[in-house]
Parts: sequence; C-alpha cells; structure tokens
Amino acid sequence: MPDLRSEALRYAKENNSRFLEELNDFLTIPSISTDPGHAADVEEAANWVANKFEKLNLVNIKILPTGGHPVVYAELNTSVPDAPTILVYGHYDVQPAEPLELWTSGAFEPEQRGENLYARGASDMKGQVCATINALEAVLEVGASPVNIKFLIEGEEEIGSPNLAEFISKNQDLLACDFALNPDTGMIGADNPTITYALRGLAYFEVRVEGPDHDLHSGIYGGVVHNPAQALCELIAGMHDENGSVTLTGYYDRVRSLEVEERNQLSELPMDEEFYRKQTGAPVLWGEKEYSPVERVGARPTLEVNGIYSGFIGEGSKTVLPSWAMAKISMRLVPDQDPDEVHQQLISYFEENAPDTIKFEIKYLVGSPASISDRNSEGVKAMQDAMERVWSKKPLFRREGGTVPVVDMFSGILNIDSVNCGFSLPDDNAHSPNEKLHLPTWTRGIDTIIHFIYNFEK
Amino acid sequence: MPDLRSEALRYAKENNSRFLEELNDFLTIPSISTDPGHAADVEEAANWVANKFEKLNLVNIKILPTGGHPVVYAELNTSVPDAPTILVYGHYDVQPAEPLELWTSGAFEPEQRGENLYARGASDMKGQVCATINALEAVLEVGASPVNIKFLIEGEEEIGSPNLAEFISKNQDLLACDFALNPDTGMIGADNPTITYALRGLAYFEVRVEGPDHDLHSGIYGGVVHNPAQALCELIAGMHDENGSVTLTGYYDRVRSLEVEERNQLSELPMDEEFYRKQTGAPVLWGEKEYSPVERVGARPTLEVNGIYSGFIGEGSKTVLPSWAMAKISMRLVPDQDPDEVHQQLISYFEENAPDTIKFEIKYLVGSPASISDRNSEGVKAMQDAMERVWSKKPLFRREGGTVPVVDMFSGILNIDSVNCGFSLPDDNAHSPNEKLHLPTWTRGIDTIIHFIYNFEK
Repeated sequence: MPDLRSEALRYAKENNSRFLEELNDFLTIPSISTDPGHAADVEEAANWVANKFEKLNLVNIKILPTGGHPVVYAELNTSVPDAPTILVYGHYDVQPAEPLELWTSGAFEPEQRGENLYARGASDMKGQVCATINALEAVLEVGASPVNIKFLIEGEEEIGSPNLAEFISKNQDLLACDFALNPDTGMIGADNPTITYALRGLAYFEVRVEGPDHDLHSGIYGGVVHNPAQALCELIAGMHDENGSVTLTGYYDRVRSLEVEERNQLSELPMDEEFYRKQTGAPVLWGEKEYSPVERVGARPTLEVNGIYSGFIGEGSKTVLPSWAMAKISMRLVPDQDPDEVHQQLISYFEENAPDTIKFEIKYLVGSPASISDRNSEGVKAMQDAMERVWSKKPLFRREGGTVPVVDMFSGILNIDSVNCGFSLPDDNAHSPNEKLHLPTWTRGIDTIIHFIYNFEK
Repeated sequence: MPDLRSEALRYAKENNSRFLEELNDFLTIPSISTDPGHAADVEEAANWVANKFEKLNLVNIKILPTGGHPVVYAELNTSVPDAPTILVYGHYDVQPAEPLELWTSGAFEPEQRGENLYARGASDMKGQVCATINALEAVLEVGASPVNIKFLIEGEEEIGSPNLAEFISKNQDLLACDFALNPDTGMIGADNPTITYALRGLAYFEVRVEGPDHDLHSGIYGGVVHNPAQALCELIAGMHDENGSVTLTGYYDRVRSLEVEERNQLSELPMDEEFYRKQTGAPVLWGEKEYSPVERVGARPTLEVNGIYSGFIGEGSKTVLPSWAMAKISMRLVPDQDPDEVHQQLISYFEENAPDTIKFEIKYLVGSPASISDRNSEGVKAMQDAMERVWSKKPLFRREGGTVPVVDMFSGILNIDSVNCGFSLPDDNAHSPNEKLHLPTWTRGIDTIIHFIYNFEK
C-alpha cells in the first residue's frame, strides 16, 4: 500500500506556486460584503469558489441563496467505508479596504513582498479557504480520501453572518456531519500552531443622537443648545469606569468566571504585555487591571467605539453646531452573555443616562453569542497531531477575542463541535490596511490539513 | 434743492428686480474659502465684486493679495466738502454647503420660494454686500454722496480671517476713515431692526488623538488597548460640568461680568426660552442656569464640538478598533478673554487629563478676541435713525453670539468703532442647509443704508 500521506504532501509541495497563483486570482475580487456597491464582486467570488470545487470534481455543488449573499456548498463523498464527515467552514467575503491611502500596494492588487502576500482577504480568509481546498486537491490526486467533506463557504462573515443561522436551520440534513473544521481563527505566532477552544460573541449597534432640528451657527446659538456631538461623547464616556470595565447595568452578570486551572494554562501563552504592545503599537496597554492581557482579550467582554461622526470633518474650520451625531458601538461577548440581553442593557443605559436635551435611536445591526468547545474531541486530537507533525511541537490552546458566529450556530443548530484553527498571524493586519498572508505559514497550513485528513485513516 | 434722499429711495425701488438679478448671479459662484478645491471660485467672486465697483465708477479699485484669498478694495470720493469717511466691510466668501442632500434646491442655484431667496451666502453675506452696493448706487445716481466711502470686501471671513489683521496693519493709510459700517451681524426678527454692540470672539482647534499605530481588529485586540475614539469622547465629556460650564482651568478668569443695567436691557429683547427653542428645534434648551438664553449667547463663552470623526462610519458594520480620532473644537469668547490664552488652557487641559494610553496633538486654526463698542457714537446714531425711519420703531441693541474678527481688528489696529448691523434673520439658516434671505427685509436694508448715508448730509 503506497504511503498516500507522503504522496499528497509531495504533490502539495510541487504545486505550491500554482496554488499561490490561484490565491492571487481570488484576491483580485473586491468581495466587500458590507458595501451594496460591491454586490457583483461578492457574487463573482462565490462563483470563483464554485468553479474551484468543480475542478476538484466535487459533487452536489450549489450556490445557495440566503436573505443576503449566497452560500457555496459542495461535497466529497469518499469510497472509503465508514469514513467520518467533516463540515469545512469558510467565507469568501472581505472587510472594506478603507483607508485606501494607507495601503502600500492596492488592496485588490495582490503583491508579494518578502515572505508575505499583501491584499485584503489574504489572511482573513481567502488564504485559509484556498489552503483547505489545496490540501483536499492533494489528497484526492493521490488516492481515496479517508474522510467525507462538506464545504460551506459563506459570503457574509464580515457583516456578522446575519442570514447564516436561518440557512443552517433550513439545511440541517444537507449539512449533517460529525464535526466542523473552521480555519478562521489563526495562530499566536509563526512558531506557535494554535487551536482555539473559545471565541467571543458580538453585538453591534449604530447609535444616533439628535439635538436641534437643523445644523446651527455655533456663534448665534452656542450656549443654549446641548451639542449632540458633545452629548454623545458624554454618553460614550460614561460607558466605562476608570478601570476600563463596562458600566452597563448587569453587563457582567452572566460572564463565566475563569477557573484557576484555565488561568494557569492561559498564562503560559507567549502573549504578555510586551507582545500586545508590539502588535498594536499602543503607547501603553489599557483595560481591567485584575486580568492579564490574554484574559482580557479571550475571557472578558468589551465595548468599543468602532466609529463616530458628527458635523464638519473636512479641511479647515466650519463653525457649525451640528444637529446630530452618530457612533458605531459594538461589544465582544463571552460565555454566557446573551446579545439580545446586552442590547436591552444598552437601551437601558441610554434611557437612564441620556439627557432630555437630545433624542436617541439605537439600531441593532448584528448579534451572536460567544462559544466554547470540547478540548478533547476526536477532531481536536486529529488537528493537534497534524500540527505537531508539521511544527514538531504541541499546539497552544487558547481563547480568542474575535467572533466567528458560525461556531455558535453549528453548536446550537447542528449540535456539533468545531475544530477552530487557521494559519493567519496576529500581525497580518486583518481588517486593517496592508493585510497580508505569511506564505511559509500558509504552506505549513496546507500540509497540516493534509495530515489532519490522513489522521482519520483507518 | 431736490430731495436727494427721496429720489434715491425711489431709484432703489424702481431697480429692485435688477438688484435681485445681480444678487442671483453673485450667488451662483461657490466661493467656499475653506476648500482649496474652490480657489478658482473664490477668485471669481472677488472679480465679481471688483466688476460691480467699476460699474459704479468707484476709484482706486484693487484686488489686493493677502497670505490667502485677496481683499477687494474701492473708494468713493465725494465732491461734498468735509464729508466723513466710512469704511464698509463685507466678505465675498461663503461656508461649505454640506450636507448637500438636505438642500431643497441647489446651494449654488439660487431659487426664490415665497418671500425668500435660497442659496449658500444669500444671507451670510452676499445679500448684505449687495444691499450696501445697491444703496450706494442709488445715492450716486441722484447726486453727490454726503459721505466718502471705502470698501474692504474680504474673502476669508468664513475661515476666521487669518490674513486680515496683517493686511489692515500694512494698509493703515489706505483704510484711514472715521468709522466702519459692518452689515454682517443681522437682526433679531423681521420686525426688529437691530444694532449689535458686542460680538463674541472665536478660537478654533483641531484635536487629534492617537492610540495603536494602525487600525486593529476589535476582536483580536479589544480589551487591551484604549480605543482612541473612546479616549477622545472621555476628554470631550470632561470639558463641561453638569451645569454646562466649561471646565478648562482659568477659562472664566477674564470673563467680564454683566452689570445689572445691561442685564435689564438684555432681558427686554424678544428672545426668551421659547424663541430659542423654536429657532433651534432642540427638544429642551441647555446651558448655564444662572444666565438667561440671551446672556448665554451674548455674554458667556462656550466650547463646542463642531465635528468629530473616527473609524468606520459607512453603511453596516465594521469591527475595527480605530487607531486615531479627531475633533474640531471651538470656543466662542467674550470680553476680555484672549484666544491665545484659551489655546494654552486647552493644551493644559489635555496635558492634565489625557491618559498615557494615547498621544494627542492640538492644531490652533484661528483665534480672534471678542469686541464691544460705543453705543452712542455718531455712526450708531445715524444707523439708529435710519432704522427708525424704515421700520417706524427704535432698533434693539444687543450682544451677539457670533464672531466678526474684523470688528476687533478695526478697533485694535485702526482705532475705529464699527456700526454692526445687517439684514439677515435668525431663521436664515446661515452655515446650514437651505440658507435663505428674506427679500422684504433685504429691500428695507437697502433703504436703511440710503437713509444712513443721507443722515450725514450737512
């Protein structure tokens, strides 16, 4: 019997530059899901993925409509008897690229500089999607796959997957599987393969504050009207106390405490104050002093201003007293916070604290709870072994600060666990200008997934 | 001897529609001084004014360069002996028109609806400039003017007249006169001709707060970095106390107190809580409780957020933790506050209150002190009489909340008082969408200036 695993690894190595060319092609599509102006590009990216599945001779390939952007689905049904079925999750949409002027090369004109490939979506997560597809291609090229695979590649992850839960609910039979593989959570560093066992949730809001019914001259009316920009600042300022804790009433009531054992394990991660200071470039770190940076990011909820706007922000001076102000405010949630409950807490905060000099409106854009999964499942063990083979060291287990709503949906609707990993790095500038993919790590990622698949060989 | 005054008034009446056509033409020029993209339009507006002066056969017409946009200058030297010389001030620049979508008709496509003419600059102050020129045309058409006139029409009032003080200093001989007429301060209502004897000053700043050195993923880093938008909100929130007073140390030290007599006089102005609520559309008024609205606007300094920006403000959601935040912050100053001192107070506030988690930068864009002038000068008396003739009632005397830096410059550099009046109304939407000019009031304004000029007849 030939050593399929080695053959597949050799095939992947020999085809690495073609894999890279294909990724480059995928990255030229500006599939920005939040922007209606890019709807055609998002569709093109879906077609690109479906096309790729066709070249692999997968079956049951479908571009399935949702209330928003479609899901690309495909199956590999192996001839190996009693093979487990893995649901591979991915997304083909990307974040907006603004501010464009901060990119060294075009956001959708991928450019390799040194060991990195620069483009929006390179790391989050077109590179990860391609790595999975490439690994499967290598496996299929050399023989029968030891596993069945179902792909679910969505187009709305960057806007909080608003239509995915409904899609999964309606397609439970189609998606039936043993567990999911989700390569969207990344690594702590290029030398630290990582499995993520907990993810934060997200609740995202747009808040609007209105004062006078039109923009006013700040000279003629300044002094008698509560400036809505100032009022919004006052409300936002009140949302944290001096320790950096969120002041919304009841906000921490459902937050699961960290046990000593887990705190000890988290403290072993190579992510200290200096690590975070270097990654962010912040002059000094900030946040709840009684928790370490890793704990604050992984196990504590936050409240962030993602954007704020009011009045005149162009060149020079305009003496306007603006009639309204707006902020995008989101919370990262941890087990067992509930996004709808947090929504209520935000409304209550405004009801209790907004002065009668202004009116407010709160729009609830997306909500998704946090998730936490079994660290000893069959899937996790197969991934742990695969990483150890490629990096010659055990992977780290961590809680992650980001949100992958699908992990919670898979668990809640399909009743399956997810193996959360991925080959992106903390300095990949996900969601920022100059997003990039570290190519040596990406190549190791392809090998890891090949090993992962063969770890289910009987 | 013919009654020149009546003849001039009749001429103005007969030519009213042509005057209006000319104003319409002037209003089509988008002379937005703050926007470098409109430099050519600003120049065109200067030429328009110079052209108008030529048609009146004024002499010594010049478009004089400054460090920024030019000053248009012209003289009328009357044959009447011992006539006083009046320096007429105006500006041909306008505010930006944004937000454009809130205009019913184009900001630079003047449209008459009912008694009003809608266009950016109609009220502030192309309409006022034209009224003065039209009045002089009527006077010159029927005989010799009882006064000499010098026009100084600048192009940078809407950006705080940054180059005007230097220009006036360098041209003191050219500008020598008995007093100034400044029709840029407006009326309390269409039935209340108004003379403004005090104006607030202005200090305008752009503040920038920086945290991480690039935009971050709010999931991966939220909890360890002080969000710069939040930090800026916290700093802005701290700039007022619960009473609406400004908290900057020393801010009120030089503020001149109101004497009982002046408070009594101000309390007679028809501008109560209800007036301001109606003008602004604010749900409830705001500000220092121990002062009436008129006092707060006229005799108390303010601090306003004219604009604020950070992060993602487009459609939908983007989970960015922004790397920086910006606010336009300005103070309206009263006698005897000093803009440079206030600048220092703002710097001190940031030095004392900004946390070490962020860096800040304060740009000082413009500064101009408040001014207060003699209520019993010859010029004021001539204007008081002129208004009484047109409206059949005495004008009101008030302190105004707006800033006309030139009033302070004329007083400080040329040692002359200004007669501050004008025929704009509080609901003219100056600096706002749908700026308009109330045409019946504008026509009365032309008549008023005609009377004003003949009030110097020997």
